[in-house]
Amino acid sequence: MTGTSFTLLGLGAMGRALAAAALDAGHSPTLWNRTPGRAGELLARGAREAASAREAITSADLIIVCLYDHASVHETLDPESDALRGRTLINLTTTTPEEARELSAWAAQRDIAYLDGAVMSVPGAIGSAEALILYSGSPEVFTTHREFLNTWAGSTHEGEDPGLASLWDLALLSGMYSMFAGFLQGVAMLQSAGVGAAEYAERAAPFLASMTELLGHSTEHLDKRDYGEPLQSLEWTTTLLDTITRAASEQGITPAPVDMVQRLIRRQIDAGHGAEDFDRIIESMR
Amino acid sequence: MTGTSFTLLGLGAMGRALAAAALDAGHSPTLWNRTPGRAGELLARGAREAASAREAITSADLIIVCLYDHASVHETLDPESDALRGRTLINLTTTTPEEARELSAWAAQRDIAYLDGAVMSVPGAIGSAEALILYSGSPEVFTTHREFLNTWAGSTHEGEDPGLASLWDLALLSGMYSMFAGFLQGVAMLQSAGVGAAEYAERAAPFLASMTELLGHSTEHLDKRDYGEPLQSLEWTTTLLDTITRAASEQGITPAPVDMVQRLIRRQIDAGHGAEDFDRIIESMR
Repeated sequence: MTGTSFTLLGLGAMGRALAAAALDAGHSPTLWNRTPGRAGELLARGAREAASAREAITSADLIIVCLYDHASVHETLDPESDALRGRTLINLTTTTPEEARELSAWAAQRDIAYLDGAVMSVPGAIGSAEALILYSGSPEVFTTHREFLNTWAGSTHEGEDPGLASLWDLALLSGMYSMFAGFLQGVAMLQSAGVGAAEYAERAAPFLASMTELLGHSTEHLDKRDYGEPLQSLEWTTTLLDTITRAASEQGITPAPVDMVQRLIRRQIDAGHGAEDFDRIIESMR
Repeated sequence: MTGTSFTLLGLGAMGRALAAAALDAGHSPTLWNRTPGRAGELLARGAREAASAREAITSADLIIVCLYDHASVHETLDPESDALRGRTLINLTTTTPEEARELSAWAAQRDIAYLDGAVMSVPGAIGSAEALILYSGSPEVFTTHREFLNTWAGSTHEGEDPGLASLWDLALLSGMYSMFAGFLQGVAMLQSAGVGAAEYAERAAPFLASMTELLGHSTEHLDKRDYGEPLQSLEWTTTLLDTITRAASEQGITPAPVDMVQRLIRRQIDAGHGAEDFDRIIESMR
C-alpha cells in the first residue's frame, strides 16, 4: 500500500516526524501549521503546504491532527466543521480522556468519523519498529486505516471509548515520571558520597528493570481491592522508608519521592490497615 | 570450601533464610534470637541454638548480625563487647549509612573487624543466583570471607566507607518504591475506566523496563549539574504532567506521585530554569 493522500494539521516536532515518516513510506501529505514556514525540507521531499486550514482539510478525506493541546484543536477545527463533514479525523494531540470523549462527540454531531490516538514514542522513534501509538474510538476508522497508521508505529486499538488511548498513555507516563524522580533521588544520595551518576545508573537501570517483574504479581488482589495477604506490610514498609528518609537527610538530601510514598502509607495505617499489603496505598489515591 | 563455623544473631525471616542457605552449603551455624524458639527445623538440619548472645558470640570467630534495626544491634552487642574483641562482625541489619559508620567506629575501638552488608533480595531468593548482597567497610574481611558470603548471594565490595553498602541499598529502593507508587496510580486510573490491573501490568511492566534505558543517557550532565541542553524541558514536562493531573482528576484519582514530580519541577521553574532539562528536578532535592 502506497500513496495515501492525507492532511496533517500541526508541524511541531511530532508533526514533522509524522510527515517525514509518511514521505519515506511513499504517502502524500498536505501540511498546515498555524505559523507558516515550518514545513521546510518536507516540501522538497514532495509534501504540499496548504495556505489555510480550510484548504488543507478540503485536500484529503483523511485528516490527521497533531496540535499543541485540546484548546488549539477546537480553535483550528471549529470554524471548519462544515468542511470536515463526511471526512475522517484522527487526533494525535495530547489530551485528557474527557477531552478526547468531548472531541469525539463534537465530531459525531457533525458527521465526522473520529479516532483518538496517543503517541507513546519520542519524535525520533516515529517510523521505527520500537514506536507505538495507541488508538481508541471508532473501530471502523482504525480497521480502514490500520495499514497506513502502521507506517508510523505499531498500532493498537484499546476500545470504543475514545478516552482510552489517552488514559493508557497518561497512566503509563505517571509510572515513568515517578520512576525518574525516584532514580534522581538515588543519584543525589550517591553523589553526596562521591559516587558518580553513571556508576549509579549502571546498577540502578537493570535493578529497576528487574523490579518491574513484581508489578504483575498482585494484580488479582488489586482488582479485588483485597490487601490482606501482605508480601510486605504497610508497617514493615514504613519502617524501611523511615530509614531511607533518615539516610537521605544524613546526606543532605530531601527525599521528596519517598516522602510522597510515606504519606500514602500513613493514610492507610492511620485508617487501621497497617498489617495489610503495601499495595493498599492505591486506596490513598482514590 | 565447606564447614565454616559461624554465629548468626537474629532469626527474623531474613536470618532464617541465611541460616537455611548456609546449612544447604554445608556450613555450621550457631543461632541466637532474642525471643527463643525461632530456630525450628534449622536445629533438625544441624544448626546449634545458643542459650545467650554471649554463648553464641564465643562459639565462633565470625559473627553475622541480622537484627531488627541499629538500636537492637547496640542493645545486643554492647554488653558483649569484651567477648567480641578479636572476632569479625558482619552486619546485615538494615541501617542508615551514618549508623553503619558509627557501628564500624564502635567496632574499631574494641578491636573487632567490621564489614557492613546490605541485602538487596527478599528472603526467598537467598542462596539463588539472582540474590545480591552489597558490602562496604574492611576490604580484608570481605576478601577473607568472600567465598563463604557467596553461598548467600552475589557479593560486591562498594568501598572502605562502611556507609556505602547501605547508601546504595536505600538509594535503589527509593527508585523502586517511587516506581511502585507511580505504577499504582496508573492502575487506579485504568481501573476507573474498567481496565483490570493484570491487563495494565502486562503493558506497564515492559514499558517501564524499557524506560530504564533512558536513565543512563544524561549522567554526564547530572555530574556536571549542567541541564542546559534539554531532552525534555521543565516547561514542556510541566504541561504534560498538568494533563495527567487533569486526566486523573476526571477519573476520580488523586495523582500523588505526579503531584510530587510537579512540585519538584515548579521549584526549578520558579527559580528561572524552565527552559532547562527535566533532570534539573534533582536540584529541588538538595
